[in-house]
Parts: sequence; C-alpha cells; structure tokens
Amino acid sequence: MSERKLQVIPLGGLGEFGMNSTALRYGDDIIVIDAGMMFPDAELLGVDIVIPDFTYLEENREHVRALILTHGHEDHVGATPFLLAQLNLPVYATAFTRALVERRLEEHEMLSQTRLNTVKPGERIEIGPFQIEFIHVTHSIVSAVALAVTTPLGVIIHTGDFKIDPTPTDNELFDLHTLAAYGKRGVLLLLSDSTNVDRPGYTQSERAVRPRLEEIFTRAGRRLVIACFSSSVHRLQQIIELSAQHGRKVALLGRSMMNVTEIAHSLGLLHIPDGILLRPQDIMPTLANKVTVLISGTQGEPMSALSRVAVDNHKNFSIQAGDTVVLSSRIIPGNEKPIFRMVNHLARRGADVVYGSMNPPVHVSGHGSAEELKLMLNLVRPRFFAPIHGEYRQLAKHAALAQHLRFQGLEDTFILETGETLVLDAKGAHKGGRVTVGRVCIDSGTIDEVVEDMVIRDRRHLSEDGFVLPIIAINKHTGRCEGLPEIVSRGFISSDDGADLLQSAKQVVARTLEQSTAEERTDWGVMQEKIRADLKRFLAKETQRRPLIMPVILEV
Amino acid sequence: MSERKLQVIPLGGLGEFGMNSTALRYGDDIIVIDAGMMFPDAELLGVDIVIPDFTYLEENREHVRALILTHGHEDHVGATPFLLAQLNLPVYATAFTRALVERRLEEHEMLSQTRLNTVKPGERIEIGPFQIEFIHVTHSIVSAVALAVTTPLGVIIHTGDFKIDPTPTDNELFDLHTLAAYGKRGVLLLLSDSTNVDRPGYTQSERAVRPRLEEIFTRAGRRLVIACFSSSVHRLQQIIELSAQHGRKVALLGRSMMNVTEIAHSLGLLHIPDGILLRPQDIMPTLANKVTVLISGTQGEPMSALSRVAVDNHKNFSIQAGDTVVLSSRIIPGNEKPIFRMVNHLARRGADVVYGSMNPPVHVSGHGSAEELKLMLNLVRPRFFAPIHGEYRQLAKHAALAQHLRFQGLEDTFILETGETLVLDAKGAHKGGRVTVGRVCIDSGTIDEVVEDMVIRDRRHLSEDGFVLPIIAINKHTGRCEGLPEIVSRGFISSDDGADLLQSAKQVVARTLEQSTAEERTDWGVMQEKIRADLKRFLAKETQRRPLIMPVILEV
Repeated sequence: MSERKLQVIPLGGLGEFGMNSTALRYGDDIIVIDAGMMFPDAELLGVDIVIPDFTYLEENREHVRALILTHGHEDHVGATPFLLAQLNLPVYATAFTRALVERRLEEHEMLSQTRLNTVKPGERIEIGPFQIEFIHVTHSIVSAVALAVTTPLGVIIHTGDFKIDPTPTDNELFDLHTLAAYGKRGVLLLLSDSTNVDRPGYTQSERAVRPRLEEIFTRAGRRLVIACFSSSVHRLQQIIELSAQHGRKVALLGRSMMNVTEIAHSLGLLHIPDGILLRPQDIMPTLANKVTVLISGTQGEPMSALSRVAVDNHKNFSIQAGDTVVLSSRIIPGNEKPIFRMVNHLARRGADVVYGSMNPPVHVSGHGSAEELKLMLNLVRPRFFAPIHGEYRQLAKHAALAQHLRFQGLEDTFILETGETLVLDAKGAHKGGRVTVGRVCIDSGTIDEVVEDMVIRDRRHLSEDGFVLPIIAINKHTGRCEGLPEIVSRGFISSDDGADLLQSAKQVVARTLEQSTAEERTDWGVMQEKIRADLKRFLAKETQRRPLIMPVILEV
Repeated sequence: MSERKLQVIPLGGLGEFGMNSTALRYGDDIIVIDAGMMFPDAELLGVDIVIPDFTYLEENREHVRALILTHGHEDHVGATPFLLAQLNLPVYATAFTRALVERRLEEHEMLSQTRLNTVKPGERIEIGPFQIEFIHVTHSIVSAVALAVTTPLGVIIHTGDFKIDPTPTDNELFDLHTLAAYGKRGVLLLLSDSTNVDRPGYTQSERAVRPRLEEIFTRAGRRLVIACFSSSVHRLQQIIELSAQHGRKVALLGRSMMNVTEIAHSLGLLHIPDGILLRPQDIMPTLANKVTVLISGTQGEPMSALSRVAVDNHKNFSIQAGDTVVLSSRIIPGNEKPIFRMVNHLARRGADVVYGSMNPPVHVSGHGSAEELKLMLNLVRPRFFAPIHGEYRQLAKHAALAQHLRFQGLEDTFILETGETLVLDAKGAHKGGRVTVGRVCIDSGTIDEVVEDMVIRDRRHLSEDGFVLPIIAINKHTGRCEGLPEIVSRGFISSDDGADLLQSAKQVVARTLEQSTAEERTDWGVMQEKIRADLKRFLAKETQRRPLIMPVILEV
C-alpha cells in the first residue's frame, strides 16, 4: 500500500520563467506534462536555449509512459526533441500542437523514429492508472488544452496556459462546463497557471485589438507592416480579414510566419481568402496602399525578418517614408533594448511605428489576470492547490489569492519550486522529497551541445576582463626556464596601452620564478599558483582589472 | 560676419538614452550644458559606465568657457569628473546639484582643483556672448532648472528634464511665468525633453503616490522596507512624514541613501523630525511595527543594500516573514531580470513585496507626458524646435507632435542626433556639419580606464565560445618546431568532453605544420594564419562553435 501514493514532480517552470514540465507518478507509472524550453539569461554567455534536466525521468526510464503536451508554445514543447532523444516516449497533443512539434523533430531528423498521437478536446485516453481528458481552453495560441487526470486517488486538473476569453475570435469558447462538472464531482488537486497573477481584473479579449487594428488600417496611407508572434493564429486571422476588407493583399515574411500559416491553414484553423496572398518579391511592385506585410521578429531577434527590414537588409522589401509598422505583441522582459534599437532604425527610415501599451491595445495577453484565476479556483474548488508556471513571486501571490478566497473544501495550498515534490495519499497531501532537477544549457540547438557550468563561468570571466596567459618554456632536460616568459592576452587591454604593461608583467613572472626555491621549481602546480597570484596582484594594482590568468608551462 | 552664427552641437543624448551633453557655440565662445553618463548595454562586456567623447571640446579647448548643469541625475552630471579632467572648466549648478557633483569629484580626488559656482533659480549669469537665466522646473529630483540662453541672435530655451507638476510636494511650483514671458518676447529655438513623448495625457503629480503609500503604511503590521531612488528627495520626504504620522522610526540603509539625505538635509531641502532616525544596528532590536527602512537598490544592483537584504546578507537587517517591501521606483528597461530575481528572494523570505504599476501607483515618472510637452511648446512658441533627450523613435514622435500643433511662428523642426549640428544665423536655421562624437567606455570608474572597441569585441567573442590557443615552440637555432604543439583552452568545452577533441586538434596543427612548404615555415605570420584557418574549420565542424583562436609561436 505504501506505493499507492500520487506524486507531483515539477521538472521545470515552478519558481522560474519558462521550460515548463511536470511529471505525475502513481505507483510505478509516470506521465510527463509538457517539455518546454526557456531562453537563457544574458549571463549564460553563448548559450542558445535552456531545457530542464530530465535526470529523474532517465533514472526511472522503465516507468515513464507518455508525454502529454498542453499547447504549442516553446516554453511548453521546445524541449520535446531533447527529451525524446533521451526517452522515446509516445506523445499526445492536439493536431496543431503536434504539427508544430513535427517541424522541430524534422529539423533534428528524428521525426521518423518518434510516436506522435493526435487528440481532440473532449477526448479521453488511458495510460496505465491515469485517465486523461483534454479540455479546450482559450489562450494566445489555438488548440490549447487543460488536462483532467483521473487517478485512483482522485482528479488532478492541470490548466496548461489559459485566459478566460468570453469572445474568442474563432468562437471556440473556453470549456467551462467540463471544468465545472469536475469541480462539482470533486477535484483532489488543481495546478493552475500563475503568469498574470500580478494583474488585477480581467485580461482583455483577443477581440479587443480589433478596433485599434481597424483604426490603423483606416489611417494607413501606404504599406502596412504588422509584426506579431507567428503562433498567434487568432491575430493573423484578424489581420488577414482586415486586409481583405481594406483591399490589401497580404505578404508573409519570415520563416516562422510562413511555417505557422501553412500549418494552421492546412488544419482549417486559419481562413485565407483566395488570391489574397502576395509573393514576397511582389511587395515592392504592388501599389503601396494595397499591401499588408505580415512579418516575424517582434522581439528584435537579430536575424529575424523585421530586424533585417529595419536595417534595409531584406532581399524583398524596403521600408519607405510613410509606411506604418505595428508591433502587435508584448515586449518580453529583457528584450527592450534590441526591440527599441529596431524601432529606432524603422523610425529613421521614416516609418510611423506603433508599439507598446496604448488604450485600446494592439496586443492583449494570453494569460488570465487575477479575476480569471479566482474564477478557475471557484469552478474547480480543489481540495489542494499548487500554483504553477511562474517565478516564486508569482506562485506566492497566487497561493495567497487562493487562501484569500477561503472557499469551502480547500484544505491546503503548496508553493512548490522545480524539484520539490508533492505527495498525495489517502490521508491528504504533503511536500515530499526533492528530485534531481536543473537547467541544461544548449549551445547551437543541436542535441549534443550541452554546455557545462564551468565553461559558462569561464566565459563570464573572459567577458569581463579577457585573459592573460604567461607562457613559460622549460627545458625538459635541465628543468630550467628557457629565456624570458612570453605573455599573450586578449580582451584585457588595447595593444597600444598594453605593450608596456605586458612587458612589466613579464618581469613580474620572471621575478616569481627567480625567487622561488629549487624545491618549488620542481613542482609546476605550485609554480602555476604562485605565478597566478603574483600576476593577479600586479595587474589589479596597475589596471583595477581581473583578467582570467592561466599560466602555461611548456616543456621543450 | 560669417562667424556670427550660433551652433547647437549635441555631444550626447540625442538619438540615444542617457549621457546628455550639448554644446552651444556663438562665434568663438562655447558653453556646455550637462555632462551625463549612461549605463552600458549588456553587449559592452566588462564596461561599467559610458560617457560622451569630448573630442570636439578638446579640439576647441581655448574656446570653451563653462559647464552648466541642469540637475543632479547621473545622465546629466555623471561625466563631469571625466570632462573636468580633460578641461578644467568653471561649473555652474544649483546648490543641490553642486553638492552631488562635489561628492563625485571627491571620490576622484579632484575637488580641490575644480571651480564650482552655485546659482539660484531666477538668477542670471553672463558668459561671453551668452546670458543664461536659470528657471525652476519640477522633476523627480529637487533643484532642477531649465535654461534660457540669450544670445545676440535670439533666445534658446533648454528645458533640461521636466514634468509640469501642479502640486509638487515642496510647493515649489514650476516657473511657468518666466517661460511664458520668454515665449511672449520671442524664442529662437526650443530644445525640449522627449523622454515620455510616447505616453498620452499628463504624468501624475508626485503627490499621487501619497494615497498608495498611506494605504501601505496603514496595512503594514510589521517592518516596512521602502526602496526608492536616493535622489528622489520629494519621495523621501513623503515617506519620512508618513513614518512620523504612523509612529515609525526611520533607518537609512545604503551609501547613496545616506549621502543624499545628508546633503538634502544640510541644504534645508529635506525636513527630518528630531529623533526619528534610527541607527542601522538598532533596526532588529526595535519593535517591528515601529520601523521604516529606507533603502537603496531599486534596480537589483548586485552590491546594493536591498540586494544584500534579499539574500539575507546584510550586517544590520534581516527580512522576516510578514515584513512589507515596497519598490517605489520604475523598472529601468533592461533591469527586469535582476529586479525580479531580487523580488523572488524577498518573497521566499515571506515578505509581501509591492512593485510594478498599480493604480494608484507607488511611483510616478519625473518626465512630462505628451500633453505637458504640448504645453511647453505652446508656452515657448519657438521659431525653431529640436527635441532632445531620447532615442530616435522619441525624437521623431516629439517632432511630429510639434508639427501637429501647427502653432503660429513655428518655422521648422529638426531631428538632430548626437554629432549632427544645427546652425542658426540671421536667415534662419539649417543642419550644419557633423562633429566628432562617440561613446567612451570606462571600466572601473577611474578616469584612466578607457576601454577600446577592439578589446570589447574580443571580450564579446570570448564570452560566446571562449578561446583556444595552439602554442608552437620553435627552436631558434634550427627554426624547426620542437615536439607536438600544445593547446590551451578556456570557456570552450568542458575538460572531460574536451580532452579527446583537443588531442585531435593538436594533430590538426601538427599536420598544418608538416604540410607547409619550407618557405611558408619561415614566415610565422603566414603560419599563424594557416594554423588559425585549419583549426577554425576543424573545431567548427566538430562542435559548431567558433572560439577565439590565437596561435602563439614561441622561440626557445
């Protein structure tokens, strides 16, 4: 009986932003919900993406049954190829999510070996002791689902990411009824999205951007260039509809924009009127007031289509004075500088650039604000609650919000961070032990390119003050130093100013060698440390800088 | 007569954020308005601050008469020690601004050699052909002024930074009357702050934070920790007053908080009731609901008092569960991640953390929004207008705003970026030639520590993929390579994974040496290039990384 407990094992995304992944375990059966990535902090130098450490799953590989995906955003699916390379699990996802993941698996040349299954909202599947129902939710991406996971101990609701949009543009309403039914029958545990818990009130409906876009379409006298997240199919639909109404053809620029529209169109999720699409090479020859350009690159990513257009380095399209550029997206914290740099370039070319928070907005969030989170809690009425998807500050606010509601039946609230498990059994719920978790840094997006902490620490050190390498040649027969030490250096001091300094540094190293005892001189480990220490002191005194110093002993 | 023209020479802060500095030249006389610094972009690795390149002033050193400071923020005065080290100009500033600059000059041990002059709002000074009147404006720092510079060709109004606060907490109203009088008599050129041109409406009064702070004081059951910019003397005053009303003593933590309160108090700008101050070491022994802690470090600066408190590493003060922490400040774009990291730590210790934009706010901006900028334009009614203090996108919006007003008398609007001069003469105004400008990167805040572009480029390269140094020992008698080359590397690959790779890399270098002709082998410049190219190709193929490769030839 001791095995008959249910464990919630957060592998990523709790107490941190991004790389969402949570395992559920009942006895010897484990399912994984989402396998997301995060974009690295600037401190992780040279790292392209970060994924969760899946050691726990590796160690339990014979027990892991499946990967279930809630929706297609990168912070929920981006680590899928990396997880599947370690454990070739069957994957369950809605058609659109599956199609996005297929593209990624193709890039990694893994598609043929993987087992993908399409599910529909309302459908139930059984995996070992888990019965999983997919529940349609509204979010900034189409085909997002919450999960109701029925276990022998009770039901767990995992919301995925959601807002409660009463007027979604595709009229596919949030399935409140199914959640209500579960809530009425009794839910053991709710795991709910905390992203926007800081925002009071309700998040505006996706339809709220329509009036602002209409105003922009009406006012624009020349080309209209609109950037949005390519996965925002609802937004793309609105822009295509408005273009049709205003007699504008639509050109798509950027690989992700083309990919996603193709997928969404082929699945019937995006309606593209016949003849409205314009090839990129036809943008410039077409009358300026008859063109909308839908473009990717809202975050100022250096290689994105919009960034290239901003510096007039796109083969098909040049901004001209009087064009209107709209950033129909949020600014992801940390991206302000590249985004504003791009906006400045666009403004220098004479574009009227519309961005940022105005009222009415050109962008609305996909995550529910405080009132929607309360509604979710009221509908589901769980016995236990653990906020997910957020930094600690957000999880703490969300937990406080639930406590504040004081609805009947809520026994306890848990703030879990990645790696802290929650154990549910016949008696109740309590925090369990910790499992191995962490962040795996990936260099250039290929599966082998894991970067070690030590390497990143070195890069950080190098990035601050460069390096100085004293090189000492030792005669292997005599054990004596041959000539004056050499010093090479980069990123430390400019060669003009540095010549004298490095000359003096050579003398410092030579002196350290001279002043060491014969015994010390036979132990090159000791000598390296002495040289490093003396040189470090000298350079810090002369320059206030602390380059990476790495004495090299060369036997010749 | 050809010399009798007036030039506006932006040396910093136009088309970029920070390091504001503008020179005015009439004939052979130059005055400099402000000498600000900027904090570097993350890409400027290892750089602490950035200041304008003052080459233009150096080249005209016999013509430069004075430095005039509008207010004490770092982006207006931070480069003063560096400019004065190059050119020992007399400085004119209000008492508070002067006192802040004195502290900086003291740190650089320059105070005794410099010539500082105190001016008062309403006062006029004459410097060569320029008559300068100091006009009181409201801003987030006390003692801020705009300048009316009367020249033989007409009046230039330089607004400095401003908002038009109808209810400043110190009741020192914005001197609209003087500006109006100048406007009525006729102004040649207006140079006006563009920082908040993106915001519609009016910026809220400093008094708007009072109700929110009152609510927080009323609710707080334990220690109340409030962080704000130490230069926000108005804010400090409000917090001290509220503490007195609520029976709380006030402790100051952080060097800048202590410095500024001391200066403001000694100048009579900050009223501190007798006996209200608490020494830092007395915080913990005092009853928790009787203490307010005023602390510096709103931007998550790693060494600031609040950052240290967040990780429980402050000698005098520990956060306890139930304490309230208020960030009464804006989040400077780019600082989101360190700030949120700090907030997460505070939340983990059980603090209730209040931050971000709520309604009513815990912070208001010091810069005027669109309607205030329009009011400024309407009051001054200049013949020519050039927006200052902002990135290009902001200058462009501000110029469009002025054009849109179409008030009588406005002849032309100029978008100038740093280095682009504006020439005014009897006929009118036009863009003049460019002068040498640029950004000087300073490493550790000392005057000698200028960092060259090349060094920063190397650091960036090093930060991405580290370095690989093949070291080849050459017998200076035979000119032949002695033994197998050595390879040292850091920040490139972990030592476990890398051992085999670097072993293979040695073979690559050895092969390059072998396969070169005898002639090539005598030219070590050529050999270095060949080794670099071959090794680069090999490492890119094996790892997809591009470390900095620097072959070292050692004669032994």
